[in-house]
Amino acid sequence: MSSETAFISALRNLASSTAARGLMDDAAVLNVGGADLVLTMDTVVESVHFLPDDPAQDVAWKLVAVNASDLSAKGALPLGCLYSHALGEDAWDTAFLEGLGEACRHFALPLLGGDTVRMPAGAPRSFSLTALGQGPEGTEPPARTMARVGDIVWVSGSIGDSGLGLDILLGTQTATGPEAQWLTARYRRPMPLTPLGPALAPYVHAMMDVSDGLLVDLSRLANASHVGARIDLGAIPLSPAYAAIAGTTCEVRMNAACAGDDYVLLFTAPPENTADIEAITKATGGSVRALGAIQAEAGLRLTCEGTDIPLPAHLGYEH
Amino acid sequence: MSSETAFISALRNLASSTAARGLMDDAAVLNVGGADLVLTMDTVVESVHFLPDDPAQDVAWKLVAVNASDLSAKGALPLGCLYSHALGEDAWDTAFLEGLGEACRHFALPLLGGDTVRMPAGAPRSFSLTALGQGPEGTEPPARTMARVGDIVWVSGSIGDSGLGLDILLGTQTATGPEAQWLTARYRRPMPLTPLGPALAPYVHAMMDVSDGLLVDLSRLANASHVGARIDLGAIPLSPAYAAIAGTTCEVRMNAACAGDDYVLLFTAPPENTADIEAITKATGGSVRALGAIQAEAGLRLTCEGTDIPLPAHLGYEH
Repeated sequence: MSSETAFISALRNLASSTAARGLMDDAAVLNVGGADLVLTMDTVVESVHFLPDDPAQDVAWKLVAVNASDLSAKGALPLGCLYSHALGEDAWDTAFLEGLGEACRHFALPLLGGDTVRMPAGAPRSFSLTALGQGPEGTEPPARTMARVGDIVWVSGSIGDSGLGLDILLGTQTATGPEAQWLTARYRRPMPLTPLGPALAPYVHAMMDVSDGLLVDLSRLANASHVGARIDLGAIPLSPAYAAIAGTTCEVRMNAACAGDDYVLLFTAPPENTADIEAITKATGGSVRALGAIQAEAGLRLTCEGTDIPLPAHLGYEH
Repeated sequence: MSSETAFISALRNLASSTAARGLMDDAAVLNVGGADLVLTMDTVVESVHFLPDDPAQDVAWKLVAVNASDLSAKGALPLGCLYSHALGEDAWDTAFLEGLGEACRHFALPLLGGDTVRMPAGAPRSFSLTALGQGPEGTEPPARTMARVGDIVWVSGSIGDSGLGLDILLGTQTATGPEAQWLTARYRRPMPLTPLGPALAPYVHAMMDVSDGLLVDLSRLANASHVGARIDLGAIPLSPAYAAIAGTTCEVRMNAACAGDDYVLLFTAPPENTADIEAITKATGGSVRALGAIQAEAGLRLTCEGTDIPLPAHLGYEH
């Protein structure tokens, strides 16, 4: 057990309120005045969650986007956010606020409050944001724990774009041109289709957002639900830009499935809801793909082009 | 205008929702499902808000206490908190969780969620906490803007203890013995009497907590309400430990009034509510003192032992 795992386990012992969902979900769900309040908090740290030379506007955008994605995955409509800003250089901070304003408008998360702190000289930049949303009416916010045997496993959007964009920024993947630009923009400005989560919520069992990688997140969802899943790597949706640069082989799809920062929805639903799910997704302007099914046997099972594929050593970004 | 002031002014332009209270209050107030949700977020940074050798348990305690104090000042009952933890050394982090658990229980703020992040090597520790409370029923959460001419200015608890405790820890004040220990404990473990705020809320006009110093905070309250205030430094409540070490002269009282981290309540109320305020405070186990009155003329006016006292160059911790 890593020290971080041990720490989080100790944290879970503290978080005994049912609203905390055992710290196993994307967000807390607190019933206040008859409404389900959905609460999430994410921190981004320079050199850990973003690159020191990422544009300030994009860092702010990402901070809002990742929290908006968590709310959407719980079927919650955004209410607002609070954020804590570590002051740095004036020009950078001003640009950050520009991006923050854009993102708050885009994701309908008005800024309600927060804190501004000075940092000791040389400290890395870090920013925390708490987002609040109102859970779906008439149904519990979907949890990771709610997958059932026989459910179809679905994913919205495309997988791997952000990870490949990061590789291009880091120089571990060589690529230029409009596709490369589109992919690096996916890393810097995640674009979760946040209206999709609330629209889908009444039709799904389990739902979460993919942030650490499709395989590791599906594995968490399956474990939380005490079930397993089998999926076809061949069904993993790749964007045209991704396919143009990296191709579409099984090996490439495996890379996409282990890359992080997708901020798309991963959910399970009974087969009879398929038509509704497809219609709702289309109406919201998104795309959705069935990857496989939930099964009783624990663990993940992968196939690609009809062949069984062993699980990789690392399913994604594990922390 | 300092760059921080300019930044906060730009931030206020972003925070146009009425729930944000113009970022001028201790907390945001959002109406959800018919209830007033009170929201506050504070960050503490090593070497800025706490000393590197402060015990980890105490740092965690302070993080919870300062947020609980904000909720109380808005008359809110605590609902829960989310917090973001920057991982450091295992033993320190474990001790931090101990203090966090103690404080969450003491202030009735169950841990609902948050985030855990790794930091680059050598980064200062920093922790953010968002606390949620439910506003008083039947009355709006008291704002800084609500003081009226003729109100009595009140303060709960004693003033200056934490500041003197910090001076002792830093060695700028020499003191030993049980009084010195009590004062340093006030710096490390603020003890806001949180049930007092909700109990007083129906009887006050403006209310806030004193965190940056009595004078600077009173000046903010008066400015926000477009009024002024006169107070008698001689009426400022000093603890027996404070008086034993520093004395009770007008100069000493001025120091106390400019020191930060008191986490007591500063509020204004019409004179006819005096008996209720005194009875409620006594029933809650606290103490309260009338310092002066709100007047139409802007600014602060100070007296001590019948003499007018000029305002000091720095009213407190201004940021």
